[in-house]
Amino acid sequence: MAVNLPGLDRLLPVPGVRLGTACAGIKHLDRDDLALLVLDPGTTVSAVFTQSGFRAAPVEVAESRIREGQPRVLLINSGNANAATGEPGVADARELCDHAARRLGDGLGGEQVLPFSTGVIGERLPVDAIRRGIDSTATALSGDGWAAAATAIMTTDTGPKAVSKRIRIEDAEVCITGMAKGSGMLKPDMATLLAFICCDAGICKVALDKLTREVASNSFNRVTIDGDTSTNDAFVIAATGVADHRVIEQAGESYDALRSGLETVACELAQRIVRDGEGATKFVTVRVTGGSTETECLAVAYTIAESPLVKTAIFAGDPNWGRFCMAIGRAGIADLDSGKVSLSLDDVVVARGGLVAEDYVEAAAAEVMARDEYAVNVDLGRGDSKAVVWTSDLSYEYVRINAEYRT
Amino acid sequence: MAVNLPGLDRLLPVPGVRLGTACAGIKHLDRDDLALLVLDPGTTVSAVFTQSGFRAAPVEVAESRIREGQPRVLLINSGNANAATGEPGVADARELCDHAARRLGDGLGGEQVLPFSTGVIGERLPVDAIRRGIDSTATALSGDGWAAAATAIMTTDTGPKAVSKRIRIEDAEVCITGMAKGSGMLKPDMATLLAFICCDAGICKVALDKLTREVASNSFNRVTIDGDTSTNDAFVIAATGVADHRVIEQAGESYDALRSGLETVACELAQRIVRDGEGATKFVTVRVTGGSTETECLAVAYTIAESPLVKTAIFAGDPNWGRFCMAIGRAGIADLDSGKVSLSLDDVVVARGGLVAEDYVEAAAAEVMARDEYAVNVDLGRGDSKAVVWTSDLSYEYVRINAEYRT
Repeated sequence: MAVNLPGLDRLLPVPGVRLGTACAGIKHLDRDDLALLVLDPGTTVSAVFTQSGFRAAPVEVAESRIREGQPRVLLINSGNANAATGEPGVADARELCDHAARRLGDGLGGEQVLPFSTGVIGERLPVDAIRRGIDSTATALSGDGWAAAATAIMTTDTGPKAVSKRIRIEDAEVCITGMAKGSGMLKPDMATLLAFICCDAGICKVALDKLTREVASNSFNRVTIDGDTSTNDAFVIAATGVADHRVIEQAGESYDALRSGLETVACELAQRIVRDGEGATKFVTVRVTGGSTETECLAVAYTIAESPLVKTAIFAGDPNWGRFCMAIGRAGIADLDSGKVSLSLDDVVVARGGLVAEDYVEAAAAEVMARDEYAVNVDLGRGDSKAVVWTSDLSYEYVRINAEYRT
Repeated sequence: MAVNLPGLDRLLPVPGVRLGTACAGIKHLDRDDLALLVLDPGTTVSAVFTQSGFRAAPVEVAESRIREGQPRVLLINSGNANAATGEPGVADARELCDHAARRLGDGLGGEQVLPFSTGVIGERLPVDAIRRGIDSTATALSGDGWAAAATAIMTTDTGPKAVSKRIRIEDAEVCITGMAKGSGMLKPDMATLLAFICCDAGICKVALDKLTREVASNSFNRVTIDGDTSTNDAFVIAATGVADHRVIEQAGESYDALRSGLETVACELAQRIVRDGEGATKFVTVRVTGGSTETECLAVAYTIAESPLVKTAIFAGDPNWGRFCMAIGRAGIADLDSGKVSLSLDDVVVARGGLVAEDYVEAAAAEVMARDEYAVNVDLGRGDSKAVVWTSDLSYEYVRINAEYRT
């Protein structure tokens, strides 16, 4: 079940990036669950991580290493989140990084390996099995490994998500390829569950840090499946610097070109995560305009996108538009004048001035809500700010997936 | 579907209160959907209302009348919320109040009638039908009408909820009888969807206002089904003053006795609303201790109680306790030390110091989660504050009820 989730196009190798995958048998014995990304020396790496107060061991380790060191390897496993595992979990993550560094040789130290995990919370990693998986991966790296890696990092995703794009910086052609996985416990609060984008542009760390925050804010931080922020969210951008242009040091034409390319890839990945949201049968864009601030527009958009009553109405295709009003009302805008609020579904105006539009015909709204993709447009009538959030519905299948996840 | 929802016990008439019901045919033709409560002159009335920014017409009307006037009549309908109906909705509510006042005679003015509505949002009230319903009710009022009234105010409730209690104030016996209805769109933010408690105690307005806020805060404001706050929430306490004791003017022994009695009735009604939550198969008490403030304890309790992933795990009876950690983590406590958090299910300790307890056996947790009622206990390990919230699970039936609500 997924809403118009595209298959994988041809994925461009990124000069300076080699990938490998293996089946470590963490949760399943019949699929790869381990991916290694090895970056050439000189690569700049930035990342944003979950804002959860209950952060997984790999998040703690990766964040400190990315802040202080020269990361060269991303070590990613699915099937086990290594979260709520305390100090022993941190030790497990460090040991596996050390092992990967030793196996890859090349003078690498364990502190140059960043660990990422996704899956069940509260269980220790099967360290021996993952060590064996690393052994078999480390000898079979290739620039063409993106499709296999995008598949290996999946959990309840129904399909892999990866996108490539070519852009131009100065006279150089630059390749961008990224992958991401969803698909529940998903209201990123900094970044989505796991997303990795590589490019061969050259950019300094300070500029890439800024760019990573900006891209996350307009892509992964604008999607919600169920409002549940993961303990393991991480979004990484790596720029290998292989392409032949001057290193980007600050804002300017090259910075903008790179940001635009990365944002296109990140938005596409973020939307694919929603299309493949757990149990999703609808892909809905919630667009809020006319707010005093972007913050209040986002509050309204998220309240609509996460309301169980709105989500079940979307699942049913039922134009029970009072539920949208309910959600707008409880979004916490203290001085909202409901008499100025308007609501439309795609181009069908449902309400104006806080009550049903005179020309409203329920059949027209029902027709929109029968579509598998549409927009819910809210105007608050109190300013010029706006915000967009992408979401899915709440179906029987969401309940089934999450009631049967472990069993 | 409901979790150990008790049937109606014998309900005590409250001296000074007469009730009547009728079938106005608002949504169904085969059940009563209109209730009138008529209060003797001299009754003190207080209420708290929804904090939604999208408030229903009857909420606007009732709130201003209760602040300024001498209310004598509660006019309640189910089947239509009269919300998102703008000025025409306000005019409808006022007209029906005027009609009820005329029919009841006794020198009543329309401004002494408080309107309350619950049901579908966004549709105009069928004013003529309700007017006829008022006509037939007004001539058949009785002190014994509580059971019929509790049934008439239901929407998706599977059964009526009403409770009586006798208390003693000075030498007088005082009767308390209350009724409430749920059962979705339910995270009261001041009061539950609709709840009315009457007693024959004598208390001045200022003291009853204070008492009403206190009782709401410890009862209806501690339950959540789906986090969706209604446009119509209202909780009313009426005290007729018929009982033979000195009028309560301020804090003291009598005030405490009355508060304790009202709180017992209100908590029982609030818990019954959760037991009858839409699609509920479990009744869960979320108890958070060891917080720096009650506010942060409530934030953690509500995040757990409203997390779709927690609620589906509760539905499944799956001790996937990492989901509780996830919810604790995203509750917005900036400086939470997850290494000090502990978690137990009833008396089974699951985690201590942020990771799985050494003596944890999953089968023991599974046995607790197979019960239809249990407690999730979280200790944050950072202070002495605490909070309790009651909630239900997220089942297929919740989705079915809300995907089929109107159709």
